[in-house]
Amino acid sequence: MKVTILGNNSALPAHGRYPTSQVVDINDQLFLMDCGEGAQMRMHQYGIKSQRINHIFISHIHGDHYLGLVGYISSLSLLGREKELHIYCPAKIKEYVMIQMPWSLGFEIVFHLIGDIERKVLVETEKFSVSCFPVYHSVPTHGFLFTEKKRKRVLIPKKLQEYEIPKYYYSKLAEGEDYIDKQGELVKNEWVTTEGHPPKTYAYTADTRYAPEIVDDILHVDLLYHETTYLHDNLLKAIDRYHTTAPQAAEIALQAQVQKLIIGHFSSKYKELNPFLLESQQIFPSTEIAFEGKTFEW
Amino acid sequence: MKVTILGNNSALPAHGRYPTSQVVDINDQLFLMDCGEGAQMRMHQYGIKSQRINHIFISHIHGDHYLGLVGYISSLSLLGREKELHIYCPAKIKEYVMIQMPWSLGFEIVFHLIGDIERKVLVETEKFSVSCFPVYHSVPTHGFLFTEKKRKRVLIPKKLQEYEIPKYYYSKLAEGEDYIDKQGELVKNEWVTTEGHPPKTYAYTADTRYAPEIVDDILHVDLLYHETTYLHDNLLKAIDRYHTTAPQAAEIALQAQVQKLIIGHFSSKYKELNPFLLESQQIFPSTEIAFEGKTFEW
Repeated sequence: MKVTILGNNSALPAHGRYPTSQVVDINDQLFLMDCGEGAQMRMHQYGIKSQRINHIFISHIHGDHYLGLVGYISSLSLLGREKELHIYCPAKIKEYVMIQMPWSLGFEIVFHLIGDIERKVLVETEKFSVSCFPVYHSVPTHGFLFTEKKRKRVLIPKKLQEYEIPKYYYSKLAEGEDYIDKQGELVKNEWVTTEGHPPKTYAYTADTRYAPEIVDDILHVDLLYHETTYLHDNLLKAIDRYHTTAPQAAEIALQAQVQKLIIGHFSSKYKELNPFLLESQQIFPSTEIAFEGKTFEW
Repeated sequence: MKVTILGNNSALPAHGRYPTSQVVDINDQLFLMDCGEGAQMRMHQYGIKSQRINHIFISHIHGDHYLGLVGYISSLSLLGREKELHIYCPAKIKEYVMIQMPWSLGFEIVFHLIGDIERKVLVETEKFSVSCFPVYHSVPTHGFLFTEKKRKRVLIPKKLQEYEIPKYYYSKLAEGEDYIDKQGELVKNEWVTTEGHPPKTYAYTADTRYAPEIVDDILHVDLLYHETTYLHDNLLKAIDRYHTTAPQAAEIALQAQVQKLIIGHFSSKYKELNPFLLESQQIFPSTEIAFEGKTFEW
C-alpha cells in the first residue's frame, strides 16, 4: 500500500503548499482522496498517471477539498478517457460538478452519494474494501478507511509433499482449512502453512475537531492521516473552527494504537512545519509530516 | 503598464504550464484577465498581492479560463477582504460561482454580465478604460482592450513666462487649448507645450480562430496577447477547434500594426515553445513567448 501526498495545506494555499489531497495505491489501483485546486497539476508534477484513478472520495463540501474536481474531470476527457469514474461525495458536490459540465464527456461519472452521517462500505473488491466513517467538522464530513482483506495463508512446499496433500486441496489450505489424509488422519493447517502478512490498513480523517469518537473506526490502522490545522498555541481557534491541534492528533493516534501517524492540513499562518512534528512526537513518537510529493509505503 | 503572465497553457495543464491568465498593472491598479485553476497559487509564487485586484475579466465559459475563480474568491475572504470585487463575465460564470458560495463573504461581488456578442466599455476611469470586443471561438468569447486616456500636453515653463500666461490657464493649456493674451493676440498651444507620451494600450484576444474581423478592435496597440494554441502543422485542428496557429497570430499582429506580439495558450501536445516563436517571427519579428512569471513592461 502506498500513499502519495499531493497537498498538505488547509483552505488558503500558502508557502507553496496546496490544498489537502492524497493518492492511495493499493494493489496497483489508484484512489484519490479529496481533490482541491491544483490536484491535477500535482499529479503531473509527481509522475502519477491520473488516468489510472477510477475512484475519488470527497470528504466534505469545503472548497479546498473539491475545487480541483471539474478541471481534473475535464482533463480526463481531453485525454480520451472512456472508463467510468466513480465519485463518492456529498450530494452538493454532484450538483456543483454537474452544473459545470455542459459538454458531453467520453465517459460516465457514477456518483455514490454519502449522507450527513454514514458508516458504510463504499468499495468492495476481493482484496480490499474502502469505507467511510463520520468525523466532526463544521459541516457533515467523513473520513475514509482502506482495509485489505485477510491475506491467504502461505503454503510450505516441503510439508505439502511430506503429508502427500493433493494439489486440488491447496486453495483450501490457503483459506485456512485442515486436511484429512487417505488414512483418515487429521493434518492441521498450521503444520503445512504459515500466516500471510497481516492485512494492511490506511485511514484519512479529513477535517475534524479532536474527536475520541472516531477512535473505534481507526483502531490499530497501519497508517493514520490526521489533520493538524494548528499548533497547541491556537487550541481555542481549533475548537472554534472544528479543527485539531498537533498534540490532539497525536492523542488520537495513541488512543487508536496506530502504527504510524502522518499529519497535514496545516494552516497558512504557519510557514515552518517542524513545530508540528515536535509537538506531536512528544505524545506519539511515530509521527511524520505529510510533505507534498512524499510517498509513504508499507 | 505592466502585464505578468500567470499561465500560458490551454485546457489541459502540462509540462508545468498552467491555464492562461495574466495580471495587468495600470497606474498601480491590478486587473486579472481570466482565472484558470491555480491562478491564485501563481500570484503567490510571483509575488503579486492578490488583494490588490478589484476587477476580474472572464473571456468565456471554458473551464481553463474560470475554474480558479471560486478558490481565489474564497481565499480573498479568508484574508479578510472588505472591498467589493467586480467580475465581468458571461451569465453562466455568475451562476457557477454563486451556487458554490453558500457561505457569506466579508465583501460584495458585483457581477457585470457580458452578452454573447458585445463591444462596450466595461471600466472607465479618469486615466484609462477597459472594453470588450467579440472574438470567434466555439462559444461566445470576448477579448479585452486596455486604453489609457489621451495624455495631457506637457507645459514648457520658460515659454509660459515668456508669453506671460496666468497660472489659472495652465490646466486649459494641458488640455490643448490656445491662449489669447491681454493684447488680444493668439498664443498657439504648440508654442508653449509639447505632446505627452502617447496613451498606452494592451489587448488580450482570449481564445479565437484566426479572425481578421478583430483587427479594427486592436489596431495599433502597444502590446497584443494573441493565442497560438497550435503550430502550423496543426492548422486543420486549429480551424476545427476555433483556435489559431502561430503564423496566423503573427498575421493578425501584422494587419493590426501592433508594436509587439506576445503569444500563449499553447496546446499540451507541445513541450517545446521555441518553434512557436520561430514560426511567428518569420511573419512578425517583434514576437515574444508569454513565459509564465514573465512581466512585460512598457
